[in-house]
Amino acid sequence: MTERQWTVYLSGEIHSDWRERIRDGVAAAGLPVRLVSPVTVHEDSDDCGVAVFGSEPDKFWHDRKGAQLNAMRTQTLMRDADLVVVRFGEKYKQWNAAFDAGYAAALGKPYITLHPEQHDHALKEVDGAANGVAREPEQVVQALAFIIRGDMPTAAHAAAAAAE
Amino acid sequence: MTERQWTVYLSGEIHSDWRERIRDGVAAAGLPVRLVSPVTVHEDSDDCGVAVFGSEPDKFWHDRKGAQLNAMRTQTLMRDADLVVVRFGEKYKQWNAAFDAGYAAALGKPYITLHPEQHDHALKEVDGAANGVAREPEQVVQALAFIIRGDMPTAAHAAAAAAE
Amino acid sequence: MTERQWTVYLSGEIHSDWRERIRDGVAAAGLPVRLVSPVTVHEDSDDCGVAVFGSEPDKFWHDRKGAQLNAMRTQTLMRDADLVVVRFGEKYKQWNAAFDAGYAAALGKPYITLHPEQHDHALKEVDGAANGVAREPEQVVQALAFIIRGDMPTAAHAAAAAAE
Amino acid sequence: MTERQWTVYLSGEIHSDWRERIRDGVAAAGLPVRLVSPVTVHEDSDDCGVAVFGSEPDKFWHDRKGAQLNAMRTQTLMRDADLVVVRFGEKYKQWNAAFDAGYAAALGKPYITLHPEQHDHALKEVDGAANGVAREPEQVVQALAFIIRGDMPTAAHAAAAAAE
Amino acid sequence: MTERQWTVYLSGEIHSDWRERIRDGVAAAGLPVRLVSPVTVHEDSDDCGVAVFGSEPDKFWHDRKGAQLNAMRTQTLMRDADLVVVRFGEKYKQWNAAFDAGYAAALGKPYITLHPEQHDHALKEVDGAANGVAREPEQVVQALAFIIRGDMPTAAHAAAAAAE
Amino acid sequence: MTERQWTVYLSGEIHSDWRERIRDGVAAAGLPVRLVSPVTVHEDSDDCGVAVFGSEPDKFWHDRKGAQLNAMRTQTLMRDADLVVVRFGEKYKQWNAAFDAGYAAALGKPYITLHPEQHDHALKEVDGAANGVAREPEQVVQALAFIIRGDMPTAAHAAAAAAE
Amino acid sequence: MTERQWTVYLSGEIHSDWRERIRDGVAAAGLPVRLVSPVTVHEDSDDCGVAVFGSEPDKFWHDRKGAQLNAMRTQTLMRDADLVVVRFGEKYKQWNAAFDAGYAAALGKPYITLHPEQHDHALKEVDGAANGVAREPEQVVQALAFIIRGDMPTAAHAAAAAAE
Amino acid sequence: MTERQWTVYLSGEIHSDWRERIRDGVAAAGLPVRLVSPVTVHEDSDDCGVAVFGSEPDKFWHDRKGAQLNAMRTQTLMRDADLVVVRFGEKYKQWNAAFDAGYAAALGKPYITLHPEQHDHALKEVDGAANGVAREPEQVVQALAFIIRGDMPTAAHAAAAAAE
Repeated sequence: MTERQWTVYLSGEIHSDWRERIRDGVAAAGLPVRLVSPVTVHEDSDDCGVAVFGSEPDKFWHDRKGAQLNAMRTQTLMRDADLVVVRFGEKYKQWNAAFDAGYAAALGKPYITLHPEQHDHALKEVDGAANGVAREPEQVVQALAFIIRGDMPTAAHAAAAAAE
Repeated sequence: MTERQWTVYLSGEIHSDWRERIRDGVAAAGLPVRLVSPVTVHEDSDDCGVAVFGSEPDKFWHDRKGAQLNAMRTQTLMRDADLVVVRFGEKYKQWNAAFDAGYAAALGKPYITLHPEQHDHALKEVDGAANGVAREPEQVVQALAFIIRGDMPTAAHAAAAAAE
Repeated sequence: MTERQWTVYLSGEIHSDWRERIRDGVAAAGLPVRLVSPVTVHEDSDDCGVAVFGSEPDKFWHDRKGAQLNAMRTQTLMRDADLVVVRFGEKYKQWNAAFDAGYAAALGKPYITLHPEQHDHALKEVDGAANGVAREPEQVVQALAFIIRGDMPTAAHAAAAAAE
Repeated sequence: MTERQWTVYLSGEIHSDWRERIRDGVAAAGLPVRLVSPVTVHEDSDDCGVAVFGSEPDKFWHDRKGAQLNAMRTQTLMRDADLVVVRFGEKYKQWNAAFDAGYAAALGKPYITLHPEQHDHALKEVDGAANGVAREPEQVVQALAFIIRGDMPTAAHAAAAAAE
Repeated sequence: MTERQWTVYLSGEIHSDWRERIRDGVAAAGLPVRLVSPVTVHEDSDDCGVAVFGSEPDKFWHDRKGAQLNAMRTQTLMRDADLVVVRFGEKYKQWNAAFDAGYAAALGKPYITLHPEQHDHALKEVDGAANGVAREPEQVVQALAFIIRGDMPTAAHAAAAAAE
Repeated sequence: MTERQWTVYLSGEIHSDWRERIRDGVAAAGLPVRLVSPVTVHEDSDDCGVAVFGSEPDKFWHDRKGAQLNAMRTQTLMRDADLVVVRFGEKYKQWNAAFDAGYAAALGKPYITLHPEQHDHALKEVDGAANGVAREPEQVVQALAFIIRGDMPTAAHAAAAAAE
Repeated sequence: MTERQWTVYLSGEIHSDWRERIRDGVAAAGLPVRLVSPVTVHEDSDDCGVAVFGSEPDKFWHDRKGAQLNAMRTQTLMRDADLVVVRFGEKYKQWNAAFDAGYAAALGKPYITLHPEQHDHALKEVDGAANGVAREPEQVVQALAFIIRGDMPTAAHAAAAAAE
Repeated sequence: MTERQWTVYLSGEIHSDWRERIRDGVAAAGLPVRLVSPVTVHEDSDDCGVAVFGSEPDKFWHDRKGAQLNAMRTQTLMRDADLVVVRFGEKYKQWNAAFDAGYAAALGKPYITLHPEQHDHALKEVDGAANGVAREPEQVVQALAFIIRGDMPTAAHAAAAAAE
């Protein structure tokens, strides 16, 4: 009997390497996890709508076409996911990340937030509906290892995390 | 880990080659998409009910038996689909296409409409609940390529689309 | 104990007096029915979006703003309704009516279609998911009287309907 | 038969008078609308959790208790609402507003966003799932008047909105 | 604060006075219960479809029209109900009663069956999904009195029931 | 890309060979169908509860234990099914078949009834919510062939069915 | 426009006066709250099933009849509630309280637990899905006052709570 | 066509070998069952939260972090399961087991309880919503064999169970 595969949606910030760090950690641990994400190439995510459905002179509708095309990917993948990770980086408004958290919450889908302490107060509602708050991507990997296999973080993991 | 397979329901017009053009485009791009459709042989779709469950002297019930038999296929496949494409051709009432759009909308299933500009005003409610409005089948393929793989349309694609 | 109030959504054609005839019939019979509808003033329904949220040079987005504003009314009222009546008149595409029928069907909300025989074949899928097909508004009133109170059509009713 | 009462949840910014302007407009128009909101006294919303359930030395858990107490109000009222308005002001992260928008979207509840143009690009996903984007609270009132009664904005309204 | 009103759907047999006995018992006990039922006039329930929507030469479609018109009443009332009572009399197939029980079960709506012991084995699946099995209508009244007010059957009640 | 597998639940009568005839027809046509059923060994279905969970002196609870054990199989398989076939034979009450039809209807799962004409009137509500009414198991196979592959019945099929 | 009425289900312990203290507090504060509960007379809750539906020699089935009759009340009221309070007293297993908490959690209904610190570890999963953990009934009243009206606990309240 | 795989969630007691006995029985019978469970290493289940997300000085929040991390595993697996088994051992409060039963009940997921007779009265509500009450793990295996394959317990099975 094959192992259950878990699908984890990685929402939010696209300007740091957090997705790669989770991907590497998952691979290193050999976890049966399919990681899925929005399109993370910023310009493509902005311009896809007009590239596919035709150009718009007004930036508002240019954005609308892109947002709705992206949403076909993101909503499908999020509905499909077992768990969601929502990352808030140090900069930008990142309202789409908070939107995804609310979307997951209303679907009854457990999520983990991943953000520096500086955002704690501003994110208190988003954290309040989360099942975990992580500071580093490696903690997300550890959480997945525990959730899926019951593996506790090893000292090595702990050291690695501490060394960040 | 195998790639996620996407299921796309192709609803609407049965008198032009739009389904084939999408099928060809999906094959050419090697997209992991299962395309599903209603039965598109017009007479079969009309007569299946009486052929299976017995003839009816009254055309109204002849049609009813057919419509309900077809619905077992279409509703199952639509509920099963990740995305829906709804095509309105240049002729006919095509109320079943609009019905499918409403059905998809109420299920929270994203859909793309595909129709010429001449229908824009008459379809404004149907387009208003859609996540994209395409003019050519190739745009649907491009949308799928972006949704599934994040691939932007290439110049070649753009040229091909423009050449239609 | 007060009588149960029924809410009935009247979808579709806005160019004939069918809503008034249902309203009059319901009033005459004293049925506890709240009749609700989309906005039926054609120009307002077209222009409301830009009137409220600002003008658009492109007719496509002009229509989009209107359609989405109208949808806040129609979807709320339809979700709220016990029953839906969907009217297809003799002219126009009336795709929004078919969209509403599909929307009702997916919500599991029973609906009655109301249309002349000439549309029977084109509407076979829409009729196939309906709980009744009426030709005249008075039949809808009779259906409501039976559904709500168990009242059978009287000879007078029948004559009135026949006289149409 | 009494008029249908509409419930509208006003989410987001608590540092300007937008809720009052909507409340005044609704009252002036005599619309049958119940406006509901989160608790908008900033300190109370922050400190309610520890005031009720006991103090916490760690700010993180202080906030958690408050967020979860607030959520009992906000989620109940949002699930109860027919429509949601989500306001993004000019300052602060306002992640809870975006969270509420995602929550409403996943529930299939139509919402209107209300924000200055400067946020358009950052809010494109949130606007993309909305049924309307307003700039001024008066436009929200006009939208409600149309949704509920089919009333189009009058010249006076337009002037008032323009004068803002 | 007014007392909660309970809605109870009475499904099944139409050839004995069980509904009246429940109605009388509820009235005597002053319970805040709205009792709702299908149309119980046998001929009307059979002929309503053709009376409203037009005659059919074929008995099969004659019945179909009636069944679907009745269903608009029964499904709406059942979805609306807090509790369902399903009565199986001594005669006839009464498949619609069993259908209603399955319908209630799938909706997660608690129901009580009411039937003589002779049907126990044939109804074991239907009873197995029920929350109570009654032999006499008076037991249903007692169940409602307990469910709604916590009232235990009095000796008088018990005697009355025993005297049946 | 592999063909979609359809799951069809065969509910009802256990005293004739209708399931075998459907199974043979599906095999002969090579349809990608998984046929599932309740346990059809009458005594086992009656006695399983006490055999597993311990004997009961009272037949009522003997039956209850069996019915609830069977229900874990039947409800799981029915929820899992794409389509349901509900068979009513010529004898017995068969209330569990009607229960299953109601259960399927409330889940929005399309079903076909299979019964002789003699039951038409008694089953009018059950047929009224069905998507097809068959007289012979071979018609169910033909319906599946059309639903899944769009295959129309051949003359041979028709002859075979007629020869029944 | 009348104030929104909130319905709060009070689950759990029946051997102390916590429900009365909440009732008194709600009355004193004049909160628009309808408090609902299971039947809290221990013997009635145990014996109702056999009193209504007939005696059982076997205690197991005696209890079963009672539990299922009680469930018609409790599940209906819990589904109806906006909020749930789950009380664990100092004694007994109180598994029905934990069952209710799980039931509320799966329905997405926010709940507050009410229990002494000694149970904290044993209740960590139940508390972990709660939106608040109270020690005294007065805290529940304060929570309701905040949730419904945004009222913060006064010094008097705080003193009263401290004096417990 | 491959056999359907059944997923069974084993909730509750972690201090006896009941899961192993079910696992052994399932393996011996060759049943197509995937057995899933919470993490059953007591200390890990307690400490996982702080090990992954950082230590907490207050035991209450230490537990909270653990409970919410565990919940991401348990809720996902329970939503995924076809059937749930809920075990109550002889000691401890085991409120999480009762919580899981309520959670399964509200999801409409059938469950079997497994506990000694001494708990019958205290568990009457939990048993009342169950589809079976077992005393020994081997009975659960027998139930699965019947549910999945229609296999009745053999004399050997019966003897083995009796010998416990």
